Amino acid sequence: MKEKKTTIEELGEFGLIRHLTEDIRLKNQSTLKGIGDDAAVLDYGEKLVVITSDIFMEGIHFNLIYSPMKHLGYKAVVANMSDLYAMNAVPRQIIVSLAFSSKLTLQKVENLYSGIKLACENYNVDLVGGDTSTSMTGVALSITAVGEGEREKIVYRNGAKKNDLICVSGDLGAAYLGLQLLEREKKIFLGNPDIQPALEGYDYLLQRQLKPEPRADIISYFREYNVSPSAMIDISDGLSSDILHICEESNKGCKIFAEHIPIDHQTEKLSAEFNITPLVAALNGGEDYELLFTLSPGEFVKVKNNKKIRTIGHITEREDGCSLVTHDGTFIPLTAQGWNAYGSQE
Amino acid sequence: MKEKKTTIEELGEFGLIRHLTEDIRLKNQSTLKGIGDDAAVLDYGEKLVVITSDIFMEGIHFNLIYSPMKHLGYKAVVANMSDLYAMNAVPRQIIVSLAFSSKLTLQKVENLYSGIKLACENYNVDLVGGDTSTSMTGVALSITAVGEGEREKIVYRNGAKKNDLICVSGDLGAAYLGLQLLEREKKIFLGNPDIQPALEGYDYLLQRQLKPEPRADIISYFREYNVSPSAMIDISDGLSSDILHICEESNKGCKIFAEHIPIDHQTEKLSAEFNITPLVAALNGGEDYELLFTLSPGEFVKVKNNKKIRTIGHITEREDGCSLVTHDGTFIPLTAQGWNAYGSQE
Repeated sequence: MKEKKTTIEELGEFGLIRHLTEDIRLKNQSTLKGIGDDAAVLDYGEKLVVITSDIFMEGIHFNLIYSPMKHLGYKAVVANMSDLYAMNAVPRQIIVSLAFSSKLTLQKVENLYSGIKLACENYNVDLVGGDTSTSMTGVALSITAVGEGEREKIVYRNGAKKNDLICVSGDLGAAYLGLQLLEREKKIFLGNPDIQPALEGYDYLLQRQLKPEPRADIISYFREYNVSPSAMIDISDGLSSDILHICEESNKGCKIFAEHIPIDHQTEKLSAEFNITPLVAALNGGEDYELLFTLSPGEFVKVKNNKKIRTIGHITEREDGCSLVTHDGTFIPLTAQGWNAYGSQE
Repeated sequence: MKEKKTTIEELGEFGLIRHLTEDIRLKNQSTLKGIGDDAAVLDYGEKLVVITSDIFMEGIHFNLIYSPMKHLGYKAVVANMSDLYAMNAVPRQIIVSLAFSSKLTLQKVENLYSGIKLACENYNVDLVGGDTSTSMTGVALSITAVGEGEREKIVYRNGAKKNDLICVSGDLGAAYLGLQLLEREKKIFLGNPDIQPALEGYDYLLQRQLKPEPRADIISYFREYNVSPSAMIDISDGLSSDILHICEESNKGCKIFAEHIPIDHQTEKLSAEFNITPLVAALNGGEDYELLFTLSPGEFVKVKNNKKIRTIGHITEREDGCSLVTHDGTFIPLTAQGWNAYGSQE
């Protein structure tokens, strides 16, 4: 008997998923795309069905000390919608499975649902089912989102071509700094509950962490101006990790220019307070829920006047590798330092 | 300000869901059926998309002491498939979200996935996506299943008519007795780990608890013989609770005859050991994953020679109430004593 020596920690989240699913062969005609993108794509007739699911665990993805239940519900829904937008699909339905301890009050559960419903309202989505259960311990919230896709317009991670321009919506790193701010204030609060939290001036960072908004506007713009990205992903693990997904799936390399990565001034300001390089927060922070996509030069002209979209680099041959080009022209290999769900946690 | 006095325990699982979702209005044309049945029904073109989700929590739905990981994975998948069959739909895809502590070994996660994959293999279903996460505590497993439905053949809970016959597949109460057996042996084992568990002679009960099989065969029979049930549900909370769902949604009453409720001889034998009335196990035990459905007299003739299907009663007017008719002709009102997820747990 061969002894198993690999540990989950060594595999990491993506390695574990690959390890567990590499032997899966799709059998049904209605399955167009299985594991390996932001969402699965199913064919049940005229429109394509795009479907994705995320699980949020208390103490891992959120801390009820500073994450109000309403925000938690809202964020869990929009995180899933962001995955659908990243396929160029439109969210239509969600299913909510929730487990919580019987010590949680009805009002807290109502608050959670009010956040879920608000997200449904804001993004025109129907809550169509789910499950509730008790939990022996903390809250577990699993959301499945279903979206509608046009057969010719679904965008996968694997379509990037050499010389395509790499674009990103909004700005990066803010949600990560928002989290650092909340963590700092939590520690101060736990040390002395009478001290008021010092959150002033960083409302944008808090909003990005507690109530992010997925980029429905960018998808609408694509539709209005008939823009067809060659590849797309949403930035949930960090720019660095997510551009590597596109390059790996497309079998390409990339150059990203540090000076072009969009960073908000609040992110820069708080980074200085924390002695964090803002660029590192932008590359590895995650939870931005921005769209990262590639455009052929012909498609690029359609977006170049959209101020919400920034061009940060271009696609190269695989042999050229994936690099960050710094302000002084140094090439640094990009590595996936995004959140490793199975790494040591302190 | 009005003070909130209602507690979650008072509401119960179904009351809580109703309370949280009663204000939901469906907005999308593609949503045919939202909350309130075994699964939601979506219209994305030619075929209907039927979708359902369940969450399984360690310590609530399963105990890793006696539930092997492989069985847990298998059961979690088939429990969802059972919901799709209860809509007269065919399972096609699943999405798996899993959270577990970093203390769990890779081998245990592999075992869980091998159970999930075996269920996919046995029921010809594609695993198309999901999410993995760490958990601060126990295992949380959420499965979403997607099935294909024919527009004219989806069966809801709300179609039962007066004089329809009430039918059930297989037999009831066995999974509950299987659980009692495992609980007893666990206690003995914890008291003295050297004592071998006394499980002999009850293999059927253990299989029903640990590795249930949903009734794909009944759905195939319906298709082959062109049988159209007027209402259908799967028995997951117990016959009593689930027939009440059909009656409530259909705005009807029912009579169920105790002597016709199918109970296996192993269930009867172990019930005697435990001083449990087998009928109570059949009515309130749950986790049977059998199909409970109603047939007009015209449809009934098509199934009356199928030995896997038993007729246990008939639908009445709502005013007649929902009753169990005992062997001696006594009428007992049926009540939902199925598992209340928010009741006190010992």
